[in-house]
Amino acid sequence: MNDEYARVDERALRDYTAAILRGAGMTTDGAGVAAAILTTSDARGIESHGVARLPQYVKLIDAGVLDPAAAPTIERESAATALVDGRNGMGQVAGDVAMRLAIAKARDHDVGVVSVRNSNHFGIAGYYAMLALEHDLIGLALTNSSPLVAPTGGRRAMVGTNPIAVAVPSGDDHPFVLDMATSTVPVGRLEVYARKGLPLRPGWAIDPAGDETLDAAAGRAGALLPLGGAAETGGYKGYGLGVLVDLLTGVLAGGLYGPLISGLWDATAPSDLGHFFLALNPAAFGPVDDFQARARDLIQRLRAGERAPGVDEILVAGEKERRAADDARRHGVRLYHSVARALDDLGRRFGLGDLPIRGENAP
Amino acid sequence: MNDEYARVDERALRDYTAAILRGAGMTTDGAGVAAAILTTSDARGIESHGVARLPQYVKLIDAGVLDPAAAPTIERESAATALVDGRNGMGQVAGDVAMRLAIAKARDHDVGVVSVRNSNHFGIAGYYAMLALEHDLIGLALTNSSPLVAPTGGRRAMVGTNPIAVAVPSGDDHPFVLDMATSTVPVGRLEVYARKGLPLRPGWAIDPAGDETLDAAAGRAGALLPLGGAAETGGYKGYGLGVLVDLLTGVLAGGLYGPLISGLWDATAPSDLGHFFLALNPAAFGPVDDFQARARDLIQRLRAGERAPGVDEILVAGEKERRAADDARRHGVRLYHSVARALDDLGRRFGLGDLPIRGENAP
Repeated sequence: MNDEYARVDERALRDYTAAILRGAGMTTDGAGVAAAILTTSDARGIESHGVARLPQYVKLIDAGVLDPAAAPTIERESAATALVDGRNGMGQVAGDVAMRLAIAKARDHDVGVVSVRNSNHFGIAGYYAMLALEHDLIGLALTNSSPLVAPTGGRRAMVGTNPIAVAVPSGDDHPFVLDMATSTVPVGRLEVYARKGLPLRPGWAIDPAGDETLDAAAGRAGALLPLGGAAETGGYKGYGLGVLVDLLTGVLAGGLYGPLISGLWDATAPSDLGHFFLALNPAAFGPVDDFQARARDLIQRLRAGERAPGVDEILVAGEKERRAADDARRHGVRLYHSVARALDDLGRRFGLGDLPIRGENAP
Repeated sequence: MNDEYARVDERALRDYTAAILRGAGMTTDGAGVAAAILTTSDARGIESHGVARLPQYVKLIDAGVLDPAAAPTIERESAATALVDGRNGMGQVAGDVAMRLAIAKARDHDVGVVSVRNSNHFGIAGYYAMLALEHDLIGLALTNSSPLVAPTGGRRAMVGTNPIAVAVPSGDDHPFVLDMATSTVPVGRLEVYARKGLPLRPGWAIDPAGDETLDAAAGRAGALLPLGGAAETGGYKGYGLGVLVDLLTGVLAGGLYGPLISGLWDATAPSDLGHFFLALNPAAFGPVDDFQARARDLIQRLRAGERAPGVDEILVAGEKERRAADDARRHGVRLYHSVARALDDLGRRFGLGDLPIRGENAP
C-alpha cells in the first residue's frame, strides 16, 4: 500500500460522499449530484476541488451560512437565456441545474446562456463544461470566487482565481477540455511549497508589501499573481481574464464580485457567488461530423508536433485529466490518507462505517 | 515636430486610407469600414494592427490572393446564430458584417453567435467587441491567425497569437475592453527588440532548438511562447486559450486552423481565416442599469485598490487605449514617419496627394 495515499473505488467514494452530504442535510438528489462532481474532481487528479473539501462544506452548513436543502429557482427566462437563483445552496446543485438548462436551450435554439446568482463554491468548472460533450455541444463554465489575486500594479488580493472551463467535442475519447484558473498557480500550490520549504517560481505571488516574492509563506500572506505574472510578462492579460469572469458572473447575475466576496471558506456570511454557463451547438454552423473531424485533426497535429529538448510528449488541454480518470476507473481514486481519515471522521458523525479502502492494486 | 512620429488628423487619416483601399479595388462601403477599423487601431495606440499594414494588404490584393471587392454572404442562419462566408475578402468587411449580425440577433433574441470562414486578417479584435457597447450589449470577438506560437513542450510555431476581445458596457466612458493576444508578447515586440539589440524577458520566446531564449533574433527565428511562458509558470493555459480560439474560429467555421494556416502576410495562398463573434444582452438577466452600476463599481474598486511600490495607478482593461484614443482625437493620431512615408508612396500610386500631416501641437 502506498505511504502517501490510499486507493478508493470511485463508486464507493461517491456513495460515501453522498451519504455524508445527506447526513449534513442535502436532499438525495442534491447529494448525488454534489458527490458525483466532487468525486469526478478527485478522479481527474484535481484533489484541491474534491472530497478533501467536504469538511469545509459541512462547516458552512453547520454555521448556517449555506442551506443544504435549497432548490435552485429559475427567476427569468427567454428562449436562449435564463437567470437561476441558487437560493444559497450548494454550488454544485445550482451549477448542474443551470448547465443542463443551457444545454436544453442549445439543443432547441443552438445557443443557451444561463447565469446563476446566490450560489456557493461549485467545485471544478470543467465538470459543467463537459456535460455539453454528451450532447455534441460546446460547453463553457465560469465562476467567480474569493479574492486571492492582486490586480496588475496592486498589492492586495481583489479578484478570485476565477476559472474558465471550455469543452469541445471531438467525436472520440480525446475531447478538448480546458479548465484553468486565471491566476498563474492555485493558492494550494503556495501552501504545499510553504509546507515543503520550497522556493516559489517567478510570477507566482507577491508579498504583503506588493513586491514579487519567492518565499511561499510571504506569498501566502500576500496575494497570487494573475496568469502571466508581472506586467512585462503579460500579467495584465491574466488580470483582465479574471475581471472578465467577475463581470460575466457576479456582476451579470446580480451577486457579489471582486473584493466584495468573503474570504475562502469564511463561515460568517453567505458567499453569493455567481456562475455563467454557455452551450453552443456546432451543428448550427455545418455538419457536426465535419466539425469533429477538424477538431480531432487539430488535436492530433498538435500532439504530433516537434518536441522541445527533454519533452516526452505534447499534450492538449484535458488529456492529463482524462488519463488520471482512466487510471482512477481501473485502480481506484487516489486519496491522501489524511483526506480518507477526515472523511471517516465525518462519516462517523453521520453514523457511517469507515470509507472502504481498496488496499490491493495500489501502485 | 516630433522626431519619431507625425500627428495626423483622425478623419484625414481615415479618408486617406479609404482612398487607398478604393484605389486597390475595394468598394466605397468596404473601404470605409476597413479604413475606420485600421485608423481606430492607430488611434488606440495599437500601431501593429493599423495603417502600417496597408502595404501588406495591398500586396495580397496585387498578388490576387485576396479579393478586395468580395461581399460576405450569409450561408446558414437561425434565430441566434449565423455562418458568414467572407468570400476571401478583407477581414474587416466580413468582421463588421458578422458582428453587426450578432448584435441584431442579441437585440432580438438576447444572444447572437456568428461564425465566419474564408476570411483574412481583420485588424484589432477589440473593434468588433466594442461595436456591442453602443447597444448596451456585451461583445466578444475571436480570430485565428498565422502560426507564431509553440505549444507547451513544442519547438515549432503551430498556433496563432489568436486574440480574445471582450467589451462590457459600464454606462459611462470607462467600459471594460479586454483585447489580448494569447501569446505573452506580439511578434512585433521581438522585431523591435532585435532592432534595438535589447534582451528579451523570460517567458517570451524559444529559439529554433526549442529552448527558451533571451536573444531577440533567435526568438524571431524560433517561436513565441504562449501567455504564461514556460509550463511551470502556466504557459499551458495560454496555449490552451490559443487552441480554444482556433477551435471556435477555423475549426467551427470550416476554415483553416493551427499549423495549416499560411505564414503571416504570405502572398502565395488565401488565408481562409475564421472569426467568432458573440453578442449578449445583459437585460436578459435583470435591469441593465443595475448591471452597469455593478460593472462601474467593480472597475472603480479595482482602480482605487492599494498599489504596489512604485506603481502610479491600477488600470482596468481598455483604459490605456481609451486615453490614447482621447489624445488622438485632440492632437491627431500618432504615426511613425516611416509609416507616413509608406502611405504617401501608396497614395501616389493611386493618384493621391501626400497625407496631410498636422505639424502643430505634436508633442
